[in-house]
Amino acid sequence: MNDLARTARLTLVLGDRNFSSWSLRPWLAARQAGLAFAEVGVRLDDAGTRDEIRKYSPSGKVPCLIAGEGAERLLIWESLAICEYLAELAPSLWPADPALRAEARSVSAEMHAGFAALRQNMAMDIRAIKPGQARSAEVGADIARIVSILQCCRKRCAARGPFLFGAFSIADAMYAPVVWRFVTYGVGLPPAAQAWVETMLALPAMREWRAAALAEPV
Amino acid sequence: MNDLARTARLTLVLGDRNFSSWSLRPWLAARQAGLAFAEVGVRLDDAGTRDEIRKYSPSGKVPCLIAGEGAERLLIWESLAICEYLAELAPSLWPADPALRAEARSVSAEMHAGFAALRQNMAMDIRAIKPGQARSAEVGADIARIVSILQCCRKRCAARGPFLFGAFSIADAMYAPVVWRFVTYGVGLPPAAQAWVETMLALPAMREWRAAALAEPV
Repeated sequence: MNDLARTARLTLVLGDRNFSSWSLRPWLAARQAGLAFAEVGVRLDDAGTRDEIRKYSPSGKVPCLIAGEGAERLLIWESLAICEYLAELAPSLWPADPALRAEARSVSAEMHAGFAALRQNMAMDIRAIKPGQARSAEVGADIARIVSILQCCRKRCAARGPFLFGAFSIADAMYAPVVWRFVTYGVGLPPAAQAWVETMLALPAMREWRAAALAEPV
Repeated sequence: MNDLARTARLTLVLGDRNFSSWSLRPWLAARQAGLAFAEVGVRLDDAGTRDEIRKYSPSGKVPCLIAGEGAERLLIWESLAICEYLAELAPSLWPADPALRAEARSVSAEMHAGFAALRQNMAMDIRAIKPGQARSAEVGADIARIVSILQCCRKRCAARGPFLFGAFSIADAMYAPVVWRFVTYGVGLPPAAQAWVETMLALPAMREWRAAALAEPV
């Protein structure tokens, strides 16, 4: 964490813990980096949701990061852009090695823009247990590609630590929602990918997020 | 440009100039930054396209950047991750001001992941002139949001230079394909957005890309 991080006043605007996979990503990155931040929760799919989010987010979507206060406040939207901003405050959020950092950004950007079938048919729903549901061919192809990424990263970086690129990085944050999907939809995984899922499930921050999701009104 | 950039051997794997909006983005960023790079062209939608792309790109998609050679070569995929790598070689590709950089990353990430209706219904097709085509309500909403971004950026940064954040940045590269869309589909624009389109059209690199698109076999 650098000096700017110690003085920055950060507020994350988040959707429902149970459903908002996008919100989980920067929240987990900020928490793992040890950055202090306030939270504003927005209940999704309510009559006032749209107007509430528009108060903060130029794109009308959550998550959104507010840095600073008053007229000088800076609004940052899109989970990946928020994570990049957090990494400027806490550089350990990306691998220090340039080659690993480039690959971590590749898999993060692929998650940011891709896997539409998984998103649409296998929505993050932490409270629900629905093994085997939603396995179209398109969803299967998305899962296969994600598993290939997880296996490839873990095999290459096994000696560096238990996360995708050794130490926890934004790549782990970007793939965190698939941890809940794999668990609740009962997706079987090869050993290296399964070990990464278990590493993620053991994080206090992931447990905290899940507990908050379970405590939300249905 | 830093020392690493002077010695890096970069090869961009690109799809058809006429159609591959994703390829245009990192190509334009690299060209505008003055980085030297080789190019490998892959003809899209051919029988061998899939196998050809797989030789380079772990995700099976273009563009892909190859940095270095032989066993030490690094593969970077996803346009935004490639642009971030280029910005590590040529830091001027992002605004130097942290707040502007965060906003440039926000609009870049929004383009990277969003505007699905525009993508699907108003494909980049530089050779074609089809004014007024493909204007569903969803496409209209995407255009309205893009125009809002262009106007907002240009009005804030007008004193800094003619691009979205003053000097050319990755944000301009990410929005470059909508320049061709706005021209070929005849989308009328408010003055600040139109001025940015004209700035982009005047870039020698954009003219070069268009000439190459027109020269491709149909």
